[in-house]
Amino acid sequence: MSKSLKEGGFEPLLNPRSIAVVGASRREGKVGHAVLKNVVEGGFKGAIYPVNPQADSVLGLKCYPRVTDIGKPVDMAVIVVPAERVLEVAEDCGSAGVKVLVVISAGFKETGVEGARRESELISIAKKYRMRVLGPNCLGYINTSIGLNASFAHLMPLKGHISLVSQSGALLTALIDRAPIDGLAFSKIISLGNKADLDEIDYMRALAEDPETKVIVLYLEGINKGEEFIRVSREVSVKKPIVALKSGVTEAGARAASSHTGSMAGSEVAYNTAFRQFGVIRAESLDDLFDSATCFATQPIPKHRSVVIVTNAGGPGILAADACGRLGLRLAELGAEITRRLREVLPPAASIHNPIDLIGDAKADRYEAALKILSSREDLDAFVVILTPQAMTEAEEVAKLLVDFKSKNPSKTVVASFMGGVRLAKAISILREGGVPNYETPERAVKALSSLIRYEEVKEEQLKRLREGYPRYPIDRDLIREILDRAKRDERKFLMPDEVCEILRACGIRTAPTILARSDEEAVEAAEAIGYPVVLKVASPHITHKSDVGGVKIGLLTPAEVKLAYHEIMASVARFMPGAAVYGVVVSSMAPQGKEVIVGMHRDPQFGPLIMFGLGGVYVELVRDVSFRLAPLTRSEAVEMIMETKAYRLLKGFRGEPPSDIEAVVETLLKISMLSMEFREIQEIDINPLFVYEKFKGCLVVDAKIWW
Amino acid sequence: MSKSLKEGGFEPLLNPRSIAVVGASRREGKVGHAVLKNVVEGGFKGAIYPVNPQADSVLGLKCYPRVTDIGKPVDMAVIVVPAERVLEVAEDCGSAGVKVLVVISAGFKETGVEGARRESELISIAKKYRMRVLGPNCLGYINTSIGLNASFAHLMPLKGHISLVSQSGALLTALIDRAPIDGLAFSKIISLGNKADLDEIDYMRALAEDPETKVIVLYLEGINKGEEFIRVSREVSVKKPIVALKSGVTEAGARAASSHTGSMAGSEVAYNTAFRQFGVIRAESLDDLFDSATCFATQPIPKHRSVVIVTNAGGPGILAADACGRLGLRLAELGAEITRRLREVLPPAASIHNPIDLIGDAKADRYEAALKILSSREDLDAFVVILTPQAMTEAEEVAKLLVDFKSKNPSKTVVASFMGGVRLAKAISILREGGVPNYETPERAVKALSSLIRYEEVKEEQLKRLREGYPRYPIDRDLIREILDRAKRDERKFLMPDEVCEILRACGIRTAPTILARSDEEAVEAAEAIGYPVVLKVASPHITHKSDVGGVKIGLLTPAEVKLAYHEIMASVARFMPGAAVYGVVVSSMAPQGKEVIVGMHRDPQFGPLIMFGLGGVYVELVRDVSFRLAPLTRSEAVEMIMETKAYRLLKGFRGEPPSDIEAVVETLLKISMLSMEFREIQEIDINPLFVYEKFKGCLVVDAKIWW
Repeated sequence: MSKSLKEGGFEPLLNPRSIAVVGASRREGKVGHAVLKNVVEGGFKGAIYPVNPQADSVLGLKCYPRVTDIGKPVDMAVIVVPAERVLEVAEDCGSAGVKVLVVISAGFKETGVEGARRESELISIAKKYRMRVLGPNCLGYINTSIGLNASFAHLMPLKGHISLVSQSGALLTALIDRAPIDGLAFSKIISLGNKADLDEIDYMRALAEDPETKVIVLYLEGINKGEEFIRVSREVSVKKPIVALKSGVTEAGARAASSHTGSMAGSEVAYNTAFRQFGVIRAESLDDLFDSATCFATQPIPKHRSVVIVTNAGGPGILAADACGRLGLRLAELGAEITRRLREVLPPAASIHNPIDLIGDAKADRYEAALKILSSREDLDAFVVILTPQAMTEAEEVAKLLVDFKSKNPSKTVVASFMGGVRLAKAISILREGGVPNYETPERAVKALSSLIRYEEVKEEQLKRLREGYPRYPIDRDLIREILDRAKRDERKFLMPDEVCEILRACGIRTAPTILARSDEEAVEAAEAIGYPVVLKVASPHITHKSDVGGVKIGLLTPAEVKLAYHEIMASVARFMPGAAVYGVVVSSMAPQGKEVIVGMHRDPQFGPLIMFGLGGVYVELVRDVSFRLAPLTRSEAVEMIMETKAYRLLKGFRGEPPSDIEAVVETLLKISMLSMEFREIQEIDINPLFVYEKFKGCLVVDAKIWW
Repeated sequence: MSKSLKEGGFEPLLNPRSIAVVGASRREGKVGHAVLKNVVEGGFKGAIYPVNPQADSVLGLKCYPRVTDIGKPVDMAVIVVPAERVLEVAEDCGSAGVKVLVVISAGFKETGVEGARRESELISIAKKYRMRVLGPNCLGYINTSIGLNASFAHLMPLKGHISLVSQSGALLTALIDRAPIDGLAFSKIISLGNKADLDEIDYMRALAEDPETKVIVLYLEGINKGEEFIRVSREVSVKKPIVALKSGVTEAGARAASSHTGSMAGSEVAYNTAFRQFGVIRAESLDDLFDSATCFATQPIPKHRSVVIVTNAGGPGILAADACGRLGLRLAELGAEITRRLREVLPPAASIHNPIDLIGDAKADRYEAALKILSSREDLDAFVVILTPQAMTEAEEVAKLLVDFKSKNPSKTVVASFMGGVRLAKAISILREGGVPNYETPERAVKALSSLIRYEEVKEEQLKRLREGYPRYPIDRDLIREILDRAKRDERKFLMPDEVCEILRACGIRTAPTILARSDEEAVEAAEAIGYPVVLKVASPHITHKSDVGGVKIGLLTPAEVKLAYHEIMASVARFMPGAAVYGVVVSSMAPQGKEVIVGMHRDPQFGPLIMFGLGGVYVELVRDVSFRLAPLTRSEAVEMIMETKAYRLLKGFRGEPPSDIEAVVETLLKISMLSMEFREIQEIDINPLFVYEKFKGCLVVDAKIWW
């Protein structure tokens, strides 16, 4: 964040007091005309300065030839001139003390080398004057709170509390066009364009402090600064919910994304892990994104995590209950007192258990009576109210009633599913205007509500993490540095088995005694040093499944056996993997059998070290029982990633077996996390297997690989 | 199906030529008035006979005191009189030769014992006269093809090719209210009500033959005749697609369902298996149900299973590609010829790879040029066309173009996602009227399309099954019957281990030689008969994990060891499971170790025998690697259920191991299927483990239980 903006806070970015529109045109149909018209018609109360050397006035406003001619402070300049003129305009803006540039003009990085050069010059100019830049190649910026539509979107969206940051401008035009129909209401809409300077991270920071924003909604195709993104997500998510749709998550989508914006699409696993671990609620689809956003923007976060369903039709009630079940939401237990009172006011055929079925002939009074009884209990605070248009149904009265209920019970969360169109149109608009979100189907209503309930957990979790900090262990940095430098000198992309052991030991991780031997004699020497019985394994960076190619001999008891094993391994490997580079054999002690797990690290290009834990042993590929977290790990994250796997059941003591030393595994994960954070040249670590012994007996690395 | 209806085909049920409305009322606001009004105003061309003893004419039609007074043939009588009068009306209808009763009146099974009695009397009367009954307690019947709205729904839906069978009347009112807005168009709408006689199975049969119906849509809360349902599903699904939403699938939903309709909600696994195995496409939500239905009703089934995406905005294109990836749809490879031609007509910034991004300033001509080139290849036959309302966008022209494209290329499947509302309203209605379904988001468009692509596979699969038949094996029925009868006489709910072995062997399944011993002496005798080494296991119906309670001793070599083992088992079991009934020990031979799998059967109360296959061994609970099919199994179903599991990789030969005798497992599954079909009193079979040996060496039941 540049200094000048820091000093002035986020005000010029979010709530500019004065706007210049550079390239304001008198000709209708030109973007420069549309933008100025939007600014004027949006109801912006601050100063508006059209800039255009060819005009004296546009849309009744005095026009300035250059920004430097304005002579009054300008917070934000919206630039819609042709790309070739953007740099000189930016210089002008800098001289005139403009704080934020919104560059709508296209013709930058998205067009190739020439454009990319222009874009980097633009950023140099901005830096020189400490200006921030939104775009270029964006739709603009909208702030409904101050009536500012500094974009070429054809409609000004309804005023509300969703703030949307989007990497796709076209998606914004689509949303803005649909918003009045769906009742979507926004506070800020930010089109990121090429993200040459300002990006989702800056706006997450700014919107976190914005009192008009109740939910931050992100549509992202790629994230450039992953490690900063997750850090900021954690800080922001404890203040307000962040809901994100990341596109390009499948292989097909990623290919489409990279040809579209050149975005690093990144791996699905890394994104999933990043979002979940750092408090970002991930939307599954566009529908889901805005269904949730509307709920966050209008409803309080329920505290009690259980749902009450009220309906005038059984079928839709069951669908809502199913959706709860699928999303892991509890249906509230109503208890004897509530059910007794419901029984008194509802007809005998009604169901007084959750879902509460008022049955088809329910008029508004029946909804009213039920809601009144239900609202008497403070812990019943999340309601899904369903209505189908049957013969006796009073949809509009029920809608008014719900709005009234909301205003009397501001701490209760209410979502509606008035299912229908023609007969319910009026009722649905009453709901929306009254701040009760309505969803076409009960399933979508429940899904949206589930995001709110999930957010309560997210917030608690992230707060806990922020308090926790990252455990530190003594680590022999000089030794590790020396080994890595040696490998660098030798131009090896991998480390030798004995080097791997040294590094792990330098982090305080126990490994089986291991010596690399390059001849049969060295192997015998190593065996004598380690003590019999020993294991011999082929040392080759190219061989993953060593035993499949006859590359492992275990339980060797004498020098003669070791010698023979050495030659057998060499012969077998040469036969099955003739192309593999073989560095000799690794001699190690026969470790006593423990429970086999795996620990790994893969450095994600966007988010940094991705730590893996899972079930080990020969069936690991069959079972695929793994969990992931991004480093640095807190202790509770390390514990959680173990608990998520089936391996946890094994370690806890499966079917009468004694429990294993889970604490030792936690420490191993934390040490690997620390190692990965401190030595950024390490690309990948693969410990497979790690033997875990009984409680208090620790764990032992039996085989490991490191690439850098 | 009653004889008279069979003779007349399904005509009176679907396309009645004459209608009586019994209970037709002159008073507005009465259901009897609304129904007659709907029939009259719907445009029904057949004869309409209001019946009401208190009126001479209603809505300008001559009114009859009783049905027997009409004196002309009546195909369908719609009954809206109070419940108490329904039986006498039904008698009248029977005497007058009415073929189908549509009983809208409530007051039957849903109200309790008295109503249930009335319902069964109604059915007796219907049977006596060979009438069929829809309802009671239903919304009625709608057929847009003949302009018949014999329901109290407040709107007549648009005419189309979706036929909807619903167990919830309220859901129908909601849908009918929403249909004009969503562009849903129906052929038949059937409200099943209490399903006293006609149910989803009857209508599936009827609609399969109905030329106006292109897709059968089911909303079900429960299925009464599961085994018939799956048989009919298979037959119908090869003729036209069946899409079903089953509610009450989660525990919460099932509880809600059972309190609502008293439906047997049934197990999620059984429903999932039934639908998938017998060709019913399962919808995940209401949105999904009707999104798919609209696509089926308007589009041909694509043959080539790969998708072309055309868009004027990158972001939504990526979302569509993601949706394809998630649903396992291939993006079509365009090839050099097509991309070269696209390159010629599209601007340089456009993306000519799938998704094809025409970019933001695309007018209609660019869509036209691209579609023309793409349509030249016969194997490109599934298109998702996305449009966002940007500055230059010509939405209506593009809509017209797509409609035109469809009429010129009737064999191509086209779904649209015109993303917006206000500016796109006109364009979207052009699409709908032109038979191109439009979806609010690209994700929903792709999901709907995926159902069509999936159906092509479903149809092939079901055709294959129908041709295949069920393999038969010799089986000693008398022996099995004798054993079951013996257990019945002893009032045991389970079979003794030696009985289990006998039954399995009677089906031709190999089991380890097994003898039940009730004393140490009997154990020794058994061991001598079987031959050493032997295994002793406690025989108790209450002990599942025998080794956890010290109930297993293996590798016993002498009479003394067997004796000792017997007493140790008894002592250990008495200590760990003091309450368990213990029948002695099972002595069996030490089977050579094979790959461990499990085979099971559980009789589902709705769908019959549910066969299970999965990975066995001690980690079975950890891994939960199982697949299910309903009996009777065809050979390819048995093969598939093995291939679906991770155990398959193990059996194929995992990491260099020799392949196992998969064929022997297939036969075991088929024999268990046959056993379960023939002996319906067997409730559950659990073979765990089944040892599978190398190819051609068969498999062996090591432990098994049977309950009946």
